[in-house]
Amino acid sequence: MINNIAKVVFVRHGESQWNYENRFTGWEDIDLSNQGCIEAKNAGLLLKRHRYLFDYSYSSVLTRAIHTLWIILYTLHQTWIPVEKSWRLNERHYGALQGLNKDNTTKKYGIDMVENWRRSYLAIPPQIDIHDKRFPGNDPRYSQVNITDLPIGESLQLTEKRVVPYWKNTIIPNMKKNKFILIVAHGNSIRAMIKFLNCLSEKDIFYVNIPTASPLVYEFNHNMNIIKSYYLSQM
Amino acid sequence: MINNIAKVVFVRHGESQWNYENRFTGWEDIDLSNQGCIEAKNAGLLLKRHRYLFDYSYSSVLTRAIHTLWIILYTLHQTWIPVEKSWRLNERHYGALQGLNKDNTTKKYGIDMVENWRRSYLAIPPQIDIHDKRFPGNDPRYSQVNITDLPIGESLQLTEKRVVPYWKNTIIPNMKKNKFILIVAHGNSIRAMIKFLNCLSEKDIFYVNIPTASPLVYEFNHNMNIIKSYYLSQM
Repeated sequence: MINNIAKVVFVRHGESQWNYENRFTGWEDIDLSNQGCIEAKNAGLLLKRHRYLFDYSYSSVLTRAIHTLWIILYTLHQTWIPVEKSWRLNERHYGALQGLNKDNTTKKYGIDMVENWRRSYLAIPPQIDIHDKRFPGNDPRYSQVNITDLPIGESLQLTEKRVVPYWKNTIIPNMKKNKFILIVAHGNSIRAMIKFLNCLSEKDIFYVNIPTASPLVYEFNHNMNIIKSYYLSQM
Repeated sequence: MINNIAKVVFVRHGESQWNYENRFTGWEDIDLSNQGCIEAKNAGLLLKRHRYLFDYSYSSVLTRAIHTLWIILYTLHQTWIPVEKSWRLNERHYGALQGLNKDNTTKKYGIDMVENWRRSYLAIPPQIDIHDKRFPGNDPRYSQVNITDLPIGESLQLTEKRVVPYWKNTIIPNMKKNKFILIVAHGNSIRAMIKFLNCLSEKDIFYVNIPTASPLVYEFNHNMNIIKSYYLSQM
């Protein structure tokens, strides 16, 4: 590899139990399904076949992302790689939809409304109030986060507003030192970064869907401009 | 719990494959045995029954410690706790003994010599040179470490010389902010910290042996003086 190229590999966590049950998950801390564990291991094996050696890694503070990252690092025999976890990489908060079955929600609200909540940039799902048990302020993992920064239901735009500062202020500066970075996050937190990185329009991002546990590589030159991006191929 | 008390829980990793095979391990990166995974899970369950909620955690950069820590955090449903890994918490480097069977080594060198290597404070095992494949300078996980700091075979005293600065300069300052800390390390890196914390003599430390995956709690007052220490009891 050319020395002045930095690589960032984005991985959406493997299938979660609620992906399997077709329920809106958001910030609910649902673990991987058995299938999700297998997917994570396969992602690790694929990275291993491509001889990836990471310098640093990031994940959200949700178990399904952390568990995926652990399985990948374990499969790569790179357990010692530093791991930094941030709430800013969490999935989009799905507000009052969290926990609901997607088919039932579609029957109740109609397919257009649900697709809009799921895919559009601006649509905000029904929000919760801070007394709802789904409000993150009741969870000790967010005790260091300013309560006004904690979401009650996010559009992709609102997700982008907390993800992109982390990309700019934390990940990019680290890339000057640590050139090979693994980020395990979620469908919508990765979509938010892709929208920013590829300067996609609101319309373009509607159609972007991130498959589970499929390493997506971005290569950067020394000015941190994107050279190319691609899903890692099976060999 | 009283608010100004800080707690540090030391855990030696669960049984490794080479513990099981009765071989000197040191810095060789040997994973947990099946029994070691069970021990780690039981340590997590014990901490869970005692309602431990950690703020921060540390491990060595060796897989058996990291794997133990992951299993404990997973069992506690505290996967999101920050984890900091340092080579300074690694096991004692066993030099040219690494990989050898302990019984065979005893037959060759005699029980007194082997016990002395294993338990005494000053005895240094036969050392390796930097061309030996067991020299850590050949492993990318130590690429950030100054080569002159990397061991070729350590006494407990030499282990203490690299562990205690980490305790003083990294862990203690963090305890002002993060009061409940989990440290997963190794028989001899934990012995080195205990010798320092309890001001043990060379003679006293000879008889200290750390059982695998048994949470050892140290309570500190706000001046970082030890109030008491104890192994966590089964409930």
